[in-house]
Amino acid sequence: MPSRFELANAIRALSMDAVQKAKSGHPGAPMGMADIAEVLWNDYLKHNPNDPKWPDRDRFVLSNGHGSMLLYSLLHLTGYDLSLEELQNFRQLHAKTAGHPEFGYAPGIETTTGPLGQGLANAVGMAIAEKTLAAQFNRPGHTVVDHNTWCFVGDGCLMEGISHEVGSLAGTLGLGKLITFYDDNGISIDGEVEGWFTDDTAKRFEAYGWHVVPNVDGHKPDEVKAAIELAKSHDDRPSLIICKTVIGFGAPNKQGKEECHGAPLGDDEVAAAREQLDWPHAPFHVPEPVYQGWDAREAGKSAQESWQASFDRYHEAHPTLAREFLRRVQCKLPAEITSEALIEKAQQKGESIASRKASLACLNELGPQLPELLGGSADLAPSNLTFWSGAKAISREDAGGNYLHYGVREFGMGAIMNGIVLHGGFIPYGATFLIFMEYMRNSVRMASLMGKRAIYVFTHDSIGLGEDGPTHQPIEQLTNLRTTPNLCTWRPCDAVETAAAWDAAIKRNSGPTALVLSRQNLPHQARSKQQLAEIQCGAYVLKECDGTPELILIATGSEVGLAMEAAAELEGQGHAVRVVSMPSAYRFDGQDAEYRDSVLPRAVTKRIAIEAGHADYWYKYVGLDGRVIGMRTYGESAPAEDLFKHFGFTVDNVVKQAKELLG
Amino acid sequence: MPSRFELANAIRALSMDAVQKAKSGHPGAPMGMADIAEVLWNDYLKHNPNDPKWPDRDRFVLSNGHGSMLLYSLLHLTGYDLSLEELQNFRQLHAKTAGHPEFGYAPGIETTTGPLGQGLANAVGMAIAEKTLAAQFNRPGHTVVDHNTWCFVGDGCLMEGISHEVGSLAGTLGLGKLITFYDDNGISIDGEVEGWFTDDTAKRFEAYGWHVVPNVDGHKPDEVKAAIELAKSHDDRPSLIICKTVIGFGAPNKQGKEECHGAPLGDDEVAAAREQLDWPHAPFHVPEPVYQGWDAREAGKSAQESWQASFDRYHEAHPTLAREFLRRVQCKLPAEITSEALIEKAQQKGESIASRKASLACLNELGPQLPELLGGSADLAPSNLTFWSGAKAISREDAGGNYLHYGVREFGMGAIMNGIVLHGGFIPYGATFLIFMEYMRNSVRMASLMGKRAIYVFTHDSIGLGEDGPTHQPIEQLTNLRTTPNLCTWRPCDAVETAAAWDAAIKRNSGPTALVLSRQNLPHQARSKQQLAEIQCGAYVLKECDGTPELILIATGSEVGLAMEAAAELEGQGHAVRVVSMPSAYRFDGQDAEYRDSVLPRAVTKRIAIEAGHADYWYKYVGLDGRVIGMRTYGESAPAEDLFKHFGFTVDNVVKQAKELLG
Repeated sequence: MPSRFELANAIRALSMDAVQKAKSGHPGAPMGMADIAEVLWNDYLKHNPNDPKWPDRDRFVLSNGHGSMLLYSLLHLTGYDLSLEELQNFRQLHAKTAGHPEFGYAPGIETTTGPLGQGLANAVGMAIAEKTLAAQFNRPGHTVVDHNTWCFVGDGCLMEGISHEVGSLAGTLGLGKLITFYDDNGISIDGEVEGWFTDDTAKRFEAYGWHVVPNVDGHKPDEVKAAIELAKSHDDRPSLIICKTVIGFGAPNKQGKEECHGAPLGDDEVAAAREQLDWPHAPFHVPEPVYQGWDAREAGKSAQESWQASFDRYHEAHPTLAREFLRRVQCKLPAEITSEALIEKAQQKGESIASRKASLACLNELGPQLPELLGGSADLAPSNLTFWSGAKAISREDAGGNYLHYGVREFGMGAIMNGIVLHGGFIPYGATFLIFMEYMRNSVRMASLMGKRAIYVFTHDSIGLGEDGPTHQPIEQLTNLRTTPNLCTWRPCDAVETAAAWDAAIKRNSGPTALVLSRQNLPHQARSKQQLAEIQCGAYVLKECDGTPELILIATGSEVGLAMEAAAELEGQGHAVRVVSMPSAYRFDGQDAEYRDSVLPRAVTKRIAIEAGHADYWYKYVGLDGRVIGMRTYGESAPAEDLFKHFGFTVDNVVKQAKELLG
Repeated sequence: MPSRFELANAIRALSMDAVQKAKSGHPGAPMGMADIAEVLWNDYLKHNPNDPKWPDRDRFVLSNGHGSMLLYSLLHLTGYDLSLEELQNFRQLHAKTAGHPEFGYAPGIETTTGPLGQGLANAVGMAIAEKTLAAQFNRPGHTVVDHNTWCFVGDGCLMEGISHEVGSLAGTLGLGKLITFYDDNGISIDGEVEGWFTDDTAKRFEAYGWHVVPNVDGHKPDEVKAAIELAKSHDDRPSLIICKTVIGFGAPNKQGKEECHGAPLGDDEVAAAREQLDWPHAPFHVPEPVYQGWDAREAGKSAQESWQASFDRYHEAHPTLAREFLRRVQCKLPAEITSEALIEKAQQKGESIASRKASLACLNELGPQLPELLGGSADLAPSNLTFWSGAKAISREDAGGNYLHYGVREFGMGAIMNGIVLHGGFIPYGATFLIFMEYMRNSVRMASLMGKRAIYVFTHDSIGLGEDGPTHQPIEQLTNLRTTPNLCTWRPCDAVETAAAWDAAIKRNSGPTALVLSRQNLPHQARSKQQLAEIQCGAYVLKECDGTPELILIATGSEVGLAMEAAAELEGQGHAVRVVSMPSAYRFDGQDAEYRDSVLPRAVTKRIAIEAGHADYWYKYVGLDGRVIGMRTYGESAPAEDLFKHFGFTVDNVVKQAKELLG
């Protein structure tokens, strides 16, 4: 049986070899954290390499994702479907072994990491999901949800602000099954961190209510093991194990220095490290006994079988609950979901209300049907209107709710939502003002990149929010959302389109959806059955004219009512004007050419887009011959009606511009 | 002489009256922090209402900017040019008293606040600027820079991640003249914070190396005063004074509750508060003795006169230094600056290097000429190439450098840069990878909104960064920058355009500039004298054809070389193709119609834009009849050349698309 050191050296060798072969990558972190990973994966991690989707597996997150070769080595060595060839193909096109761990590329990658700090936040989300799912499904004598979340973080993760947001919330919520290892190697890219990072990190996390195990030698397996035992014994609080390590451990001339962080060691240093580590094997060669020492397939199979047996007993005792559990973890919607019916219902009701209020009405209808909805807001619940009638806050003492008071922590919220949806069993929705999407921006991108169903409720969507002024009034944010690949954005014009947006958001399981909603009331629009159905196409003719239109007005959200009024005025003056409502450009761009051309015929080049957001985006639909009535500056502080007038969102201005265009 | 309580009540009354009149606003914070503000402003703050720009004034930042009426009341009462009429006009169009404090609207507003946490970061930036300016200019026996930075923060600010980033850095740098008051009122918008914010904040800031004064009764002036004395006596560390307060203090039925946070109290409660506070005066009426108790004009005048006298002595002893000091604080560039010469020099040199490397060359030339340059990077100096040959790190012990190792704190960096530029005396530049602009996003917006000269060095600007993969490859970020009002973005195609971009960035004093730079080498382009001059127009004809062009290729940055190659190929096949290099759409849009039409003639509708960024932005320039060779998905992890090929950035593809378009 190989020694622990030998087992850990397999990680080191594979990592330095792969980085060397790719001529690119980060050997320092894998070599520095190899001993910790060896203890964790061989002695504690509950997982089954043959079923990476086993719902009750432990979750492992490498928040310092640049150390991806650590994770790839672990997956390969323990028996996941990740071949040596894939390791040799590190960082090449179409490889499963991308530069940073990418969710969906290799089995066993629980989340995409690289943007620092977010992995820790994902881990917090996973631990919340575990605790809440356990509270919802476990029954006396039946524990079907019971697993740990383990997370590795580096100095960078802990310098990032998001580590504060989620560390603080994890402490408040008492996430006892979250155990985090801090790779305290004293080095970041600019050099020795003491010039810019002098926190007493133990004290800081104690201030959050965490249990901290300080001063662990990350190269002594016994110390690491003792720390883990201690952490597991404190199950009322999350634990932080602070491991002193040497970055690039084993590379005799480069270890402990920045130069081994993010560049290949070089052939000479790789050779010297082989000597230093007493690892005489050829590049990418792992001796069979070492493979055997790592192989987790048998143990994983048996662990999962034992869980399956206990789940079968649960199934017998609580058949409905067990079926519901399976539905939830498989991310299937209930067969009888009636979200579509909400659209027609809203049309019949015909209310002229704020779309944020219409959204609350949807939540009140959907909430009881979808217990997987796990809501929240970054301390704006009364403004975002996300705390629906059946919402119940999750607390330290009672995790069995369905709503998180995230506090004023937008970025933390977004990345925690990603952790929740990655864990499975939930559809997270989270809210803030549209402008503060910017604080959580990269987490929205990460959900889009990973293709996970998170739902964002972004209210106060334009200058229409009024008096709070330019710092609170979104201008360029809609364009930012719309140009984010795989993010579906909706800006509904009334309660009906809001219902359609919620329906689509719930059903979209290939990526996130952003619902962009107004603070102020929006007029209800009349619609035929066909128009009602066409909302889901993302854009549709809301008002048709006789014959070929001379002019098309394209509008979204609060500007649709304005376009309708202006069209009526122009029609009264003898012009044939079509109005297109475009609540979701993402959906519209996904329609076939025939439909798109039926809504925006190529021949009609006189087009005006109207939106109280940045103008530039709209040239995509109006071209060089059209016009955009939009925003090109920041807003101002004033009542909404004064602002719309000030910035030209008036019937008079639309009519004026239309007539100029019509010549 | 009115009592302290009476003086403080003037703030409370003005705040509740103004919010009531506007039917919108936040009375809770001003009423809760009035007593603290009264002690600070009447007993400590060094300022002169008649000269709000006095360089050695103390800086005051209201990070919880929703409490704007606190600041407006203070400015009005102490004698700034902010009339009672302006207070009565709170939150109305064109008023100086916007919903949140807006820099440039009313005198005495040091920074725009509202987006939580950033005010604290601005204050940290101001304190850094003070300490560094003092180190650069004070001389034995001559102290011309010596002022405090005072900051008010609320629960929201301290929940935000940015508070961690800047709190940590402020501790490391030992900013002893930064004194922050935490309005610990236990209330945020969702209600009592104990459900989502249970940090031991004192312990947390001690972990950052701050001096903390806990448990101060924020309604007892003596306690506040004693705390300030204690804070001032600890000049080696920043201080946090934790004040227990009652939100909405004085409103008998609403104080201590969320409902007084962000809504008018209502006429009845305002009347009840008048009674409770023993403030029998009519709305907006402040008795003369109270005005006298607040008036800071005489004291301010005398303080500034005394400083001026000491500055005159300094001027006599160190005339060159004194002139340089005045130049610096007036934000004037040296008359003899030769940044323009760099452009021609680069053209002559003709190097094909990465634009990040060309940027370093510019810094090496500009640095010695511009001691006001205060650089930095969020722990990516070796990649961003921002640590130029004369760069010297600022440390706790020696503030006399010109470079900040910000650590992995992008958002903190951006908002600290805003504080530095607002303080005056510096041109801050800060760097990270373009993708991590998202982490600091809202601070970039704030610089743009305030119109301040910050310079961003965003390197690794596309899939061209290669192996780090999709989490690190910007797609939609360029569009995000370009649609940010008042932000000037440059994406230079070679070393020459990089020099032009730096020249423009240095000279632009009305807003920030983003320099978007490549990791990889870019081919040098030949240029005539006229073309060289036209770079500053933002877009220009880099390659002309004979006669009217059949097709225009528009490209930026790394895609300009590709466009030139494709044009040559097409020309060989008999097509008349013009190539337009557009390093800065912002600058191009600012040219007159004649110039714009000369570059992109309306008659030429066959246009292809080529950029390894999101395609949608470019329809603004190519219209419905053009094409965009851009990105519509995320990138991948692979060597750069493989990625450019994979995503269609090849001569073959450009030629193919051109021929399809030409028909």
